[in-house]
Amino acid sequence: MLSGKEVAQHNTRESCWIIVHGKVYDVTEFLDDHPGGSRIILKYAGKDATQEYDPIHPPDAITSNLPIEKHLGPVEPDTVEKVEVQITDEEKLRLERMEKRPLLSEILNLHDFESIAKLVMPDKAWAYYSSAADDEITIRENHAAYHRIWFRPRILRDVTKVDFSSTILGHKTSMPIYITATALGKLGHPDGELNLTRAAAKHGVIQMIPTLASCSFDELVDAAQPGQVQFLQLYVNKDREITKRIVQHAESRGIKGLFITVDAPQLGRREKDMRQKFEAEDPAEVSKSGSDGVDRTQGAARAISSFIDPGLNWGDLKWFKSITKMPLILKGVQCWEDALEAYDQGMAGVVLSNHGGRQLDFARSGVEVLAECVTHLKEKRGLKFPNEKFQLFVDGGVRRATDVIKAIALGATAVGIGRPFLYSYSAYGQEGVDQALQILRDEFEMNMRLLGAPTIKDVVPEMVDASNLNSHIVAVPSDSLFNTNYEVMQHAMLKTKPKL
Amino acid sequence: MLSGKEVAQHNTRESCWIIVHGKVYDVTEFLDDHPGGSRIILKYAGKDATQEYDPIHPPDAITSNLPIEKHLGPVEPDTVEKVEVQITDEEKLRLERMEKRPLLSEILNLHDFESIAKLVMPDKAWAYYSSAADDEITIRENHAAYHRIWFRPRILRDVTKVDFSSTILGHKTSMPIYITATALGKLGHPDGELNLTRAAAKHGVIQMIPTLASCSFDELVDAAQPGQVQFLQLYVNKDREITKRIVQHAESRGIKGLFITVDAPQLGRREKDMRQKFEAEDPAEVSKSGSDGVDRTQGAARAISSFIDPGLNWGDLKWFKSITKMPLILKGVQCWEDALEAYDQGMAGVVLSNHGGRQLDFARSGVEVLAECVTHLKEKRGLKFPNEKFQLFVDGGVRRATDVIKAIALGATAVGIGRPFLYSYSAYGQEGVDQALQILRDEFEMNMRLLGAPTIKDVVPEMVDASNLNSHIVAVPSDSLFNTNYEVMQHAMLKTKPKL
Amino acid sequence: MLSGKEVAQHNTRESCWIIVHGKVYDVTEFLDDHPGGSRIILKYAGKDATQEYDPIHPPDAITSNLPIEKHLGPVEPDTVEKVEVQITDEEKLRLERMEKRPLLSEILNLHDFESIAKLVMPDKAWAYYSSAADDEITIRENHAAYHRIWFRPRILRDVTKVDFSSTILGHKTSMPIYITATALGKLGHPDGELNLTRAAAKHGVIQMIPTLASCSFDELVDAAQPGQVQFLQLYVNKDREITKRIVQHAESRGIKGLFITVDAPQLGRREKDMRQKFEAEDPAEVSKSGSDGVDRTQGAARAISSFIDPGLNWGDLKWFKSITKMPLILKGVQCWEDALEAYDQGMAGVVLSNHGGRQLDFARSGVEVLAECVTHLKEKRGLKFPNEKFQLFVDGGVRRATDVIKAIALGATAVGIGRPFLYSYSAYGQEGVDQALQILRDEFEMNMRLLGAPTIKDVVPEMVDASNLNSHIVAVPSDSLFNTNYEVMQHAMLKTKPKL
Amino acid sequence: MLSGKEVAQHNTRESCWIIVHGKVYDVTEFLDDHPGGSRIILKYAGKDATQEYDPIHPPDAITSNLPIEKHLGPVEPDTVEKVEVQITDEEKLRLERMEKRPLLSEILNLHDFESIAKLVMPDKAWAYYSSAADDEITIRENHAAYHRIWFRPRILRDVTKVDFSSTILGHKTSMPIYITATALGKLGHPDGELNLTRAAAKHGVIQMIPTLASCSFDELVDAAQPGQVQFLQLYVNKDREITKRIVQHAESRGIKGLFITVDAPQLGRREKDMRQKFEAEDPAEVSKSGSDGVDRTQGAARAISSFIDPGLNWGDLKWFKSITKMPLILKGVQCWEDALEAYDQGMAGVVLSNHGGRQLDFARSGVEVLAECVTHLKEKRGLKFPNEKFQLFVDGGVRRATDVIKAIALGATAVGIGRPFLYSYSAYGQEGVDQALQILRDEFEMNMRLLGAPTIKDVVPEMVDASNLNSHIVAVPSDSLFNTNYEVMQHAMLKTKPKL
Repeated sequence: MLSGKEVAQHNTRESCWIIVHGKVYDVTEFLDDHPGGSRIILKYAGKDATQEYDPIHPPDAITSNLPIEKHLGPVEPDTVEKVEVQITDEEKLRLERMEKRPLLSEILNLHDFESIAKLVMPDKAWAYYSSAADDEITIRENHAAYHRIWFRPRILRDVTKVDFSSTILGHKTSMPIYITATALGKLGHPDGELNLTRAAAKHGVIQMIPTLASCSFDELVDAAQPGQVQFLQLYVNKDREITKRIVQHAESRGIKGLFITVDAPQLGRREKDMRQKFEAEDPAEVSKSGSDGVDRTQGAARAISSFIDPGLNWGDLKWFKSITKMPLILKGVQCWEDALEAYDQGMAGVVLSNHGGRQLDFARSGVEVLAECVTHLKEKRGLKFPNEKFQLFVDGGVRRATDVIKAIALGATAVGIGRPFLYSYSAYGQEGVDQALQILRDEFEMNMRLLGAPTIKDVVPEMVDASNLNSHIVAVPSDSLFNTNYEVMQHAMLKTKPKL
Repeated sequence: MLSGKEVAQHNTRESCWIIVHGKVYDVTEFLDDHPGGSRIILKYAGKDATQEYDPIHPPDAITSNLPIEKHLGPVEPDTVEKVEVQITDEEKLRLERMEKRPLLSEILNLHDFESIAKLVMPDKAWAYYSSAADDEITIRENHAAYHRIWFRPRILRDVTKVDFSSTILGHKTSMPIYITATALGKLGHPDGELNLTRAAAKHGVIQMIPTLASCSFDELVDAAQPGQVQFLQLYVNKDREITKRIVQHAESRGIKGLFITVDAPQLGRREKDMRQKFEAEDPAEVSKSGSDGVDRTQGAARAISSFIDPGLNWGDLKWFKSITKMPLILKGVQCWEDALEAYDQGMAGVVLSNHGGRQLDFARSGVEVLAECVTHLKEKRGLKFPNEKFQLFVDGGVRRATDVIKAIALGATAVGIGRPFLYSYSAYGQEGVDQALQILRDEFEMNMRLLGAPTIKDVVPEMVDASNLNSHIVAVPSDSLFNTNYEVMQHAMLKTKPKL
Repeated sequence: MLSGKEVAQHNTRESCWIIVHGKVYDVTEFLDDHPGGSRIILKYAGKDATQEYDPIHPPDAITSNLPIEKHLGPVEPDTVEKVEVQITDEEKLRLERMEKRPLLSEILNLHDFESIAKLVMPDKAWAYYSSAADDEITIRENHAAYHRIWFRPRILRDVTKVDFSSTILGHKTSMPIYITATALGKLGHPDGELNLTRAAAKHGVIQMIPTLASCSFDELVDAAQPGQVQFLQLYVNKDREITKRIVQHAESRGIKGLFITVDAPQLGRREKDMRQKFEAEDPAEVSKSGSDGVDRTQGAARAISSFIDPGLNWGDLKWFKSITKMPLILKGVQCWEDALEAYDQGMAGVVLSNHGGRQLDFARSGVEVLAECVTHLKEKRGLKFPNEKFQLFVDGGVRRATDVIKAIALGATAVGIGRPFLYSYSAYGQEGVDQALQILRDEFEMNMRLLGAPTIKDVVPEMVDASNLNSHIVAVPSDSLFNTNYEVMQHAMLKTKPKL
Repeated sequence: MLSGKEVAQHNTRESCWIIVHGKVYDVTEFLDDHPGGSRIILKYAGKDATQEYDPIHPPDAITSNLPIEKHLGPVEPDTVEKVEVQITDEEKLRLERMEKRPLLSEILNLHDFESIAKLVMPDKAWAYYSSAADDEITIRENHAAYHRIWFRPRILRDVTKVDFSSTILGHKTSMPIYITATALGKLGHPDGELNLTRAAAKHGVIQMIPTLASCSFDELVDAAQPGQVQFLQLYVNKDREITKRIVQHAESRGIKGLFITVDAPQLGRREKDMRQKFEAEDPAEVSKSGSDGVDRTQGAARAISSFIDPGLNWGDLKWFKSITKMPLILKGVQCWEDALEAYDQGMAGVVLSNHGGRQLDFARSGVEVLAECVTHLKEKRGLKFPNEKFQLFVDGGVRRATDVIKAIALGATAVGIGRPFLYSYSAYGQEGVDQALQILRDEFEMNMRLLGAPTIKDVVPEMVDASNLNSHIVAVPSDSLFNTNYEVMQHAMLKTKPKL
């Protein structure tokens, strides 16, 4: 058993030990790979980091990320010095802003959660959640694409009662949406993904549990209500045995669908996130590292994703069918050719998604790919959508129930929503997610009625005009000289003095 | 008979009585449904509210909105304490701005009325009139759509005399426009919709009386000049007897057309309006209500519209034909399929409208739907437009006579204009509406001449190029990094010192 | 003969006499029609206005605008009090800015003249020259349309010598442009249109003399160099005898082409100009007039244009052919149907123009109409363009030689340029126009070379891609909430402190 | 031999001698042609300019630019006064900014180099590098065009290994890019183009040596590593003997490809650059020159480019084939017709380029022309692309590996990158170029993987949607009055005071 005194000597970048839950770990080589940056670890070099560790990590994070030989064993409790967590000035300001949040009842739409979360969540959480690939074109296009789809509402239909419940893979949902998988849920709130599990139960919607959750898988399954349906999002490990264990464990715990991520053979670079890390780092440290040529900037994504197998291919699907009876869905399909292949290989469906714009910039929006898939799968295989046997899902860019309704009209079974719920709980905890789901319900009711569609089945392709969906227009660059010479028109103005 | 003293004891949110025109009403349960918010009522809890009530309500508003059991009967006049209306600092500033309005002759176009009204009308009136559904895309698209229609003017036609008078449902109008129905007219001006009735008479245009007028229906009919034509806009009541009474009363009073609203089975959420209410409310009250989970935010729309029947459907039209001989027009048709159905069911016409963008966001503009209807009704039923038997009307987004002329060229019989007239009288009373109509006349004369069309019949489809009308383009999101690096060109500049 | 003393008594709005060049005029009824506003006249009520009058009026302006009965005859010179012209503070600032103009050699393009002119010319001149119809969409579209036309340059052609001279109606021009007609030239510079005549001579280009020139027609013809070609733009008078006199006088003075304006049966309202007048007026006067309901706001345009015949029509063209042998060109044709009619009626050509955006807003740009005309006249009459027998001209929105070259490629014979030359001389007098023409020459030489076209004949349709010319796109209104939530990407930034 | 005293007397604009490397030159007539302006030379009139000359000129610049009769011979060393180089305040500020550059490891993409270079490089270097033709529409369009091309990524392909190496004209490159030719490399950094040679070697990419390099051709060839491939960009001299000598010398030194520039019979006017020169000049001098009508504004481009032959034409290609065996590529082809002609004439390829937007404004982007060429050359000659026998290259506007990948998918063999590397070394010297190439490698690896393309051959046309590539849209001008009246939506906001 190690003594606190011994541990305390390893308090440098060159040899950095920390204590978590009474055990000592040598994290020297892990420093540059830490998603939250090395600085925060170095602050606890040679000390007990439990208090800082707990709110943002799953319990098994350190043991599963660190090679076994770096687990140095237990420390004598009495010999460890107590650590007082210090609150930075920035953190104080953030907490003050937290106090000034508007009432939940003043939050009128999903955008509002984002605007408040941006102000009250930790900077690194905001940077991680909000960032996307390269120039962040696709993340915005995901939303913009919905604005190129317009409604053709029908009138004089009895909409006294509107029912927007539906089914996903045969399971009931109160709305044609699901909570899609997103990583590192505790960055925004100490309860992490549990916020989603609880709100999903309350509102009768399905949660997709992420491989890279901050909470452990079992925690999230344990938190489910009896009968509550959950799916699992899967990053496939290079070591298939690990993957097999995860999949079969999930099935045994009652998971109802396996969403295999196929758009992330490598996790994307997100420059806004990288830029944030530089600012958060100790400049002196960065300088040192910069000069020795070590690239630590892509550490976060690599650290949490280096296990993902870039060799995963169509040939592997057979194996998946051999190890589980859960329906298999490919998450991240981006053209009709691959949707067709998935259908031919017996998948239960596909998620048309570009990973929230976080992977390949200039990937098209899911809803645009949806329209393409519906056309070609009808032509090639005679399929009609929505289709019970082969379900099309879409995610990315959704902020309004009207967005969802547009995707449904075009043939989607349901739509995944991710970031808006992260922002909801980052700002208000589980109550935020509750309110977000309530807002969506209200919007569904209103808009189904206004569209003249009493049920989800009544939401048909003729109700939308998507003829401009494929238009990717960048205007001719502006004529600066002409425009600055042009004197903009002014409207009537008040007199500077009142009439006498 | 109640005494003022007794009434005065009911001065809390828990029990709130008020006196209006010498009678006492228990408005406790109505507080959260009051369109103007609860705060303003609570100010008069236990007191005489007549002075505050009169300028913004129709005389029968309180009796018809409050269940009979809340009418507590007369109060002894002498026992009531006089109330001095206090003017807030904000109101003082508003009244000062009112004094600084530019001369009416300096108002050059309909936009000008809006810019002045925005400054001089009460905030809640502005919020109610100007707000629209969800992200307010459709309200702006209504105007934008006109900018995608361009003219093909003809030359060398004798336009010494231009005559832009026309007929609507067989009734003469000096211009091919009508004043469309809008709710709560007294929010902007104490005379409410009477301003419109009077100006309509003066300029020979037709007013459509709204179901939700601030003035009573009979007031507005009484104010009409002999021979002045008026239409009625109808929200259909769940209780058809009430609707029957309204319709038959209207017919007996000489109303010449019944415009049945079909795009509002439920009145839309308008977030700008809701946001304004939160600010206007007493924060303490809001806080209380927020914490007890009562949602009061949709109160205004619900309160004034809960009677509307979401079950209204095509089957009901036969009944309407059985109770009145007035021509029936469906207001709020949004695709050619429904226009065709209306034609087949013997309607006299349809208003292609999305309710000023206040109902379903991403509904297309009326003028876009117009082009679609003309094409398909010609193809399916051989109809030509404009058509005396089945008239197409359009409303939404109109600010210039050129907008109207575009719709006429595409086949509309006439165009409804709403908000611009509200802003006109909110800023200048009836004289404002007079001036607005005069501006439109001037614009008509000028533009008919420049277009080479001496009469409305000469405004033909070949005079417009509407080939881009259906383009709903959202540009590719901007490249922030490239754009900020680009150094914008500068034109020549003055020397900082004069030449020596 | 009147005495100065007698004149001096008529110094009010009710009776206003002024002296110009020793003669007395009663301008009382003309006050509201004066293009420059009544205020400036009232300043000289009862006094000698010659000093103020001269720099901005043609010598015969007052005699031809005022009915003969208002010509009160000569005044005794000695009895007239001397008037000292006072310079306002604004005028002083303007003159200071004039001193700070950059050197002419620092003016790099036509945009530069506009940016300097805007600062150094009188406000009312800027307002009159720069303003356009309604929302000023067409004036800007005129320029924007050129930005939808792109080049397809050819390589490896011998462009050692490039010759961009051409002919217009058989007359040589050094460039395929002409100086088009614009009104009230002295507002910007005391020499008015003479600046254009002189610079046109120097650079071998053709000037079109406007009916509403500030200089008299004969002055402008007298100023021409031997052999210098001039055209005449004609507003047709209701009194055809006057028109006949003007036309035949022009022919006798050697004018080589008659451009009959057909897009202005009534002169357009230009709100920027109207707004400026209100500001310039004496508020007290305006107030008075405003309250008595007299509309003086359209005075300027009406005053100078009330003689124009809105009854002019195709039937009149025969008469024009009977009174002159000059080639007749219709100026202001805006669709192929009218261009075809002009051809069939034996015109020598048409100017595809919307009057610089000053008449009908949402009229299409000349260059867009050009492409349409070329297509249809080829189809209907087998014409090829450019065509010696029936010439197509275009004006509006031109700022670069590339704009002109695009029009030439599409089939135009030459392109008219107006405002840029007004701005050139308003800022720098005749030297400004010289420099503007020199800049165009330099641009022509450069761009013809880069395009691979040694002569104007080598500028062929295949050298441009005009496939987007007809696209009139207005984007879907922006999503304010989404956009404000989006955190714009930042590039790398300097450290706040230097490295140590 | 001249004495320093004699030289010192020629210290005026009228007679200006300078000393460089111990020899005297009469530069009086060259003053106005000096690319860096006359002012900087006049500062050294009559003095030793070596210290100022060296860092920005190739050693033979002065001897080859000045006629032999202006070479006045050696000066007696001891008689020359020493010159102290003074640093201006602006230069001091620039050097301070240089100290504050972020670490190279903080540079995340090519945009970042530009943003830093803009701040730390000399103004005249920035103006020369960043400027482009006319209104700088094409330079921005070059980048914008890539944003109209979207990806159609494929999934479930084994991308464990990705190999983006390729060949250009048979020579290996580690990435499908090359460093294209740009002029005056020492303006940004004293080592000029050598920075590129060295980094190219390190990363295994090919450099194209420019005719107008600041370093001499032999310096750049000498600096190459054994086996390092270099191309030569050629401006063809009016004197073909000089051209022959250059070409044959290049071949003898091992140059592997001759890129003949065909888009610059005359070098473009770049107004941003010209504007900068005016500011840099001594106002007094400018004034003098302005008044005598001498135009010095186009001096820089003319001075360095007056030798270029505008008579170069298709007939000359045969001669080139007769003097060299190097593969010949035409640089600056801008339509398919000329690409076809180049193929028919036996060229080895063409560079689809508009010279970085520096020549003809409104020339289309290379990548747009690429799509056109692939279509038509397939149709006319049955060619498939990429093609070993006739290679298509593209340059202009590239900032991301995704841009390159798009061009490859459309059929390009490789893509030229110019300005980004200039900015890289202007900010950080050779290490900057290293880092820029490393960033591109990282981006290639990531994006090839995400696209599902393990090798360059797997990047096929079906992987991109370029259907909007030809859209050159300029929106309808904005409606100022409507837009300013519209009150933009606001999201939820923090309370101004914390909850109590």
